[in-house]
Formats: sequence, C-alpha cells, structure tokens
Amino acid sequence: MYDVIAFDADDTLWHSEPLYRATEEAFCGLLAGYHDAEAAVEALHQAEMQNIRYFGYGIRMFALSMIEAAIELSGGQIPTRDIQSIIDMAKGMREAPVRLFEHVEDVLASLSQSHTLMVITKGDLIDQEDKIARSGLAGYFTHIEIVSDKTSDVYRALLAKYSIDPRRFLMVGNSLKSDILPVVAIGGHAVFIPYELTWAYEHVTIPDEEDPKQYTELEHIGLLPEHIRQTSDG
Amino acid sequence: MYDVIAFDADDTLWHSEPLYRATEEAFCGLLAGYHDAEAAVEALHQAEMQNIRYFGYGIRMFALSMIEAAIELSGGQIPTRDIQSIIDMAKGMREAPVRLFEHVEDVLASLSQSHTLMVITKGDLIDQEDKIARSGLAGYFTHIEIVSDKTSDVYRALLAKYSIDPRRFLMVGNSLKSDILPVVAIGGHAVFIPYELTWAYEHVTIPDEEDPKQYTELEHIGLLPEHIRQTSDG
Repeated sequence: MYDVIAFDADDTLWHSEPLYRATEEAFCGLLAGYHDAEAAVEALHQAEMQNIRYFGYGIRMFALSMIEAAIELSGGQIPTRDIQSIIDMAKGMREAPVRLFEHVEDVLASLSQSHTLMVITKGDLIDQEDKIARSGLAGYFTHIEIVSDKTSDVYRALLAKYSIDPRRFLMVGNSLKSDILPVVAIGGHAVFIPYELTWAYEHVTIPDEEDPKQYTELEHIGLLPEHIRQTSDG
Repeated sequence: MYDVIAFDADDTLWHSEPLYRATEEAFCGLLAGYHDAEAAVEALHQAEMQNIRYFGYGIRMFALSMIEAAIELSGGQIPTRDIQSIIDMAKGMREAPVRLFEHVEDVLASLSQSHTLMVITKGDLIDQEDKIARSGLAGYFTHIEIVSDKTSDVYRALLAKYSIDPRRFLMVGNSLKSDILPVVAIGGHAVFIPYELTWAYEHVTIPDEEDPKQYTELEHIGLLPEHIRQTSDG
C-alpha cells in the first residue's frame, strides 16, 4: 500500500510545544510587574506572527519575539538583565532533553523493517538536526528533510526528488495545516494524530466540503502499525 | 571531467559579508558611548563564537549575539530602544537586496548547458532559501542543499545521496575551511575564489604538508569556465 511513510517531528515524534509553553510562562513571570499573563501572551503571539517573515520558525525567532514583546509590554522599562534572561531561556530550550512520545521507538523499529521511513519537518535547521540527533531515532530514517514551509508544492517537489508516487506515500503528523491537508491535496495519504497543545499558528478551519475526510485520525502513534496493516489488507 | 559543479552561495555567488560588516559598524555606533569600536567588535565576535552552538549561523544568531554583547559592553546600561534598533537592523539585513558578483549570471548560464549545477551552502534555512529565490539564479541549479555545517562527512553523504563520484565533482567557494579542504579530503576537486572579506570564523591555517595544492585558486568567478575547459582538455 505504502512505499514511504514520512513523519513530522515536533509534537509527532517528541514533545515540543510544552517547552515553548513553559518558556512562555517564565516570560509572563518576567513581565508580571507590567501586564497580566494574558496580555503578555497576546503581545508575544503578535510579535511571533510579525516575525515569521523575518526570522522564520524556531527558538531563535521565539527569543527575538520575546525580547520585542518585553520591550513593548514594559514601555521600554524592562531591565537589560531580564533581556539577558530571555536569551538564556532560549539557550536552555536548545539544550532541553528530547522527550519522545510513548510507543514511538517501537513503532519506528517495527515499520522500518517493512517500509522506507522519512522525516519531513518544518523549522530551524539547527533546532531540528540537533533534536533528531539527540532523539536516538536517526537510524530509522532513510531520508530526513527539513523544510522552511509545508505546502502542497513543497511536498510535490520532495516526492518528485525521491521518485515517490503520492498514492503510495503516507504522511503522519499533528498539524492539519502542515502535515495533512497539503498531502491529501496532492493525492497522498495522511494520518492525523492530534496533540493536546498546538501552536496557534497551526490552527485551521476545515471547510465542510472536505468531508468525508480524506485522512485518518488516530489517538496516538502506537495505533499506527495496526492502521497500516488494515489499509494494506483492504 | 566533471559531472556536477557545486557552488557555495554567500560571498561566492553574491556579497554577504559586507552586509554583516555594515551592521557591525552600526552596532559600534550604538555602543560608542561605552567602548571604542575595536572593543565592541571583539566582544561581538566572542559572543558569536559562543552562540554558534546554541543559535547556529546567520542573521538571527548575529542579532542575539549583538544584543548580548551590547548588554555586556554597556554594563547593562544600554537603553531598550537601542536593543530594539539591533533587532530592526537584523530585519533590515533580511530584506537587503542580493548583490550578485560580476560574471555570476553569465558563468552559470554557460556552465548549466554542459553540467549539472548545484548549490551547497551553510547557514540559516530561511536566510539562504530567501536569498536564492531573490537572486534570480534558482533556475540554473538542479539541486540546492542547505546544510548546518560543511565537513568531509557532510560532503560524502551529499555525494552519496545524488550518486556523484567525487572524482567527477567540483566545488567552488570562498572558504578554504568549508568549501575547499573537506572536498579535497574526500577525493573531490575544488576551486578557491578568495574574497577580500572573510568571516573570522572561516579562517584556517593550512599545514605545509598540504602543498602542492590540491585545489585551484582563481581571482574571480568569471575565470571559471576557461579553467573547466582547460582541465577537461588536459
């Protein structure tokens, strides 16, 4: 049924968003003297949205956005030692341990015996390479592709590069916007594994006409091998 | 003689370092009330060297390093509006026009008719993708590879990925450390085109035993087609 199974990385193979949320909380703590947490988070998210075009995704963009939001929220009064703290928090994020989801290692070990596996992840080259290396999972993947955006065009180009027929390609991920809809749009298969926390930027509204769903939703990655067995038999 | 000719991008196809130097000058201007330019540049370079492991290469790392150096150089007294100015300078760098070297467009147009061309560049994914897109040169390249480091292992893996024989591979670049020596070490060919400005981090000392040189040095990229013709005849 599938020649190649590709996985998103952040919040699909390992937890990522909780690290951002924890840093966000520390950020709100620094700004508590000026604004409540809700206003601080709102200003931070606005800075992030504006900064994607300049600074892309990942920890460095997040750090620069926190600094800008802190200056704005404090009316310029934030002490420079707090700005240094923000940079230190970003360094801490880069060194945080990679926490795999339950079942991930078993699932990859099993599927890698019957399928070509790859990672297709969006974000910072160094963030992602470093996490893949430290995850201990690199050996399961034949190809690792780190892209700056996940559109249908990007998937189409990747599949062409590796001569993969979309009808024999399965993408697994936690973002409808980045992992599921663009793959379905080019005739590929997709398994959506929602994550309790999803970055606001990744939220999409799915138009009604997209039903019946052209993708499968699973509760956790441990159910993936059984799903693949079933669709392969079908 | 060569199946594939690969080019470094920054300071090989287009000017990059002058943009960093100009921003460095503006940075020294901001800090002029605390330290002279020499001390400011020294502190900035130290911050960069320490931050590569956290923040990689490129504009975002440079911005975060400028902020840290500014806080340090001013003993924490730098006003937050100057920190905002540093971030704004980084945004300006991302939007600066891509200035091609003379001859680049003609050389690529000519060589692309007889050879497979690729870009192998180190750095920030978004910096590099954006510059390649805005350079107008993307159409000449069959493959574009953006890597986080340029070691012999990285080149070996890339050549294996595209089934390129190192003996039929030519790398063209301005950094002995990143473009020339690691390629020569795996049996490939290299053309070194020195650039008047080179980031301190890219400087290497070449041991005497490496002579006679296993690479060719050219004054400018306009001389490349003639060099390739000569070696192909030889």
